[in-house]
Amino acid sequence: MAAAGETESFAPLIENEVSQGRFVLVCEHASNAVPARWGTLGLTQEALRAHIAWDPGARALAQALSARLDAVLVHAPVSRLVYDCNRAPDMAGAMPAQSEVYEIPGNADIARDERLARTQAVYLPWVAGLHGVIARRIALGLRPVVVTLHSFTPVYHGKPRRVELGVIHDADAHFAVAVQSAASKLTRLNVQLNAPYSAADDVTHTLRLQATPYGLPNVMLEIRNDLLATAEQVTTMADQLAAVLNMGLVEIQRQAKAS
Amino acid sequence: MAAAGETESFAPLIENEVSQGRFVLVCEHASNAVPARWGTLGLTQEALRAHIAWDPGARALAQALSARLDAVLVHAPVSRLVYDCNRAPDMAGAMPAQSEVYEIPGNADIARDERLARTQAVYLPWVAGLHGVIARRIALGLRPVVVTLHSFTPVYHGKPRRVELGVIHDADAHFAVAVQSAASKLTRLNVQLNAPYSAADDVTHTLRLQATPYGLPNVMLEIRNDLLATAEQVTTMADQLAAVLNMGLVEIQRQAKAS
Repeated sequence: MAAAGETESFAPLIENEVSQGRFVLVCEHASNAVPARWGTLGLTQEALRAHIAWDPGARALAQALSARLDAVLVHAPVSRLVYDCNRAPDMAGAMPAQSEVYEIPGNADIARDERLARTQAVYLPWVAGLHGVIARRIALGLRPVVVTLHSFTPVYHGKPRRVELGVIHDADAHFAVAVQSAASKLTRLNVQLNAPYSAADDVTHTLRLQATPYGLPNVMLEIRNDLLATAEQVTTMADQLAAVLNMGLVEIQRQAKAS
Repeated sequence: MAAAGETESFAPLIENEVSQGRFVLVCEHASNAVPARWGTLGLTQEALRAHIAWDPGARALAQALSARLDAVLVHAPVSRLVYDCNRAPDMAGAMPAQSEVYEIPGNADIARDERLARTQAVYLPWVAGLHGVIARRIALGLRPVVVTLHSFTPVYHGKPRRVELGVIHDADAHFAVAVQSAASKLTRLNVQLNAPYSAADDVTHTLRLQATPYGLPNVMLEIRNDLLATAEQVTTMADQLAAVLNMGLVEIQRQAKAS
């Protein structure tokens, strides 16, 4: 028995689509909002504010980068605890029953129909919305460079993480390598390739689905969230990463001309 | 200046979506229909009935297979001369100016806005519609096997082709190899792997976009169209290919259990 609200669907939010620049910025974990039909998923307000529900600071960083790079930005309007838009519907992490030390009661025993309903309400409009942005730009000859933006917790399962900027790639590493090199030159951040996660952890679903099939340059950036805790920090990080991404783009354009 | 009709969009046609079977059949070149807003693309009626406009026999074969395999079928409602749904928007073949010996006047000089309009009217709804079918089935735990169905002309640029059934793969060959092996055992067809085309000819866009990112078994089948010219031939071919695809599926299920 479907309540009226159960056919509601949650399209991605798109900012600055008029941009003619090459970068398409993507933020799958921008929001910790849980729409009313899913209540609180059995979590406390504290848990819903924690990193398990979203990537704190990622949306603000993405918006600041969008302004600096004149880039289109696509971000998800719903918490990843409802549906993690960076996961395929058959991955455990798509509707996680556990995240780090937290159990998520509302996801403990998801029936087949509810998996389908969340896929339809959140994942399908997300994929179609982002795909539309990318394909329209391909049709216009803009040849997008896809950059997904994430933040990670400085302490995970009790263990502190030294990495500050993770540069993660999937099958095509060429833009990630250029970005890592630029970040090492332009910043004093602890920059690491494929840390704290890598494609083997199934974190590159968006890149696989939206960039690789078109041969588009792509990278996933992971920023330690204690470096995005204040507006000043976000500004500083956006200034640095805008320079890094631009230098990375110049490098792959140079390589393309040389080849 | 957009005429009223220019916002029209052409969603794929979906048959037998209630099926709980594993096969998802796809027919990108099912139709030679050219919607009124594109006139005749400057072609004669004869050219619009020829293989350049569609894959003759492919839709009838796909429907016969859908019945035999209890498979969902997704097919395109518009000629590939308007937009070839098996091509990315930046590929020349997406809106071809030439196809074999035919020039397509309506595609000779497509402006940027018209490329965008066709992408939005045909390609985006196609991708979203097929993706919805596949992702919903993934969410339901049905683990789709994606099979794209095509036909090819027996004489190309004046040269006869001996191959009767082409079995084509992209990055993941495992289902294609099982299908080729089954076809060699069960039929007397001239079966060849990656003929008359291969992934290097950019013919595997749908597989790359809709199957590979999810790790789904997949294959592209190309049938010589003189073997699909009558209803009886279509029936005979469907009987054979249903057996071949089922044997291929049994084989990859056996491999999955053994590993």
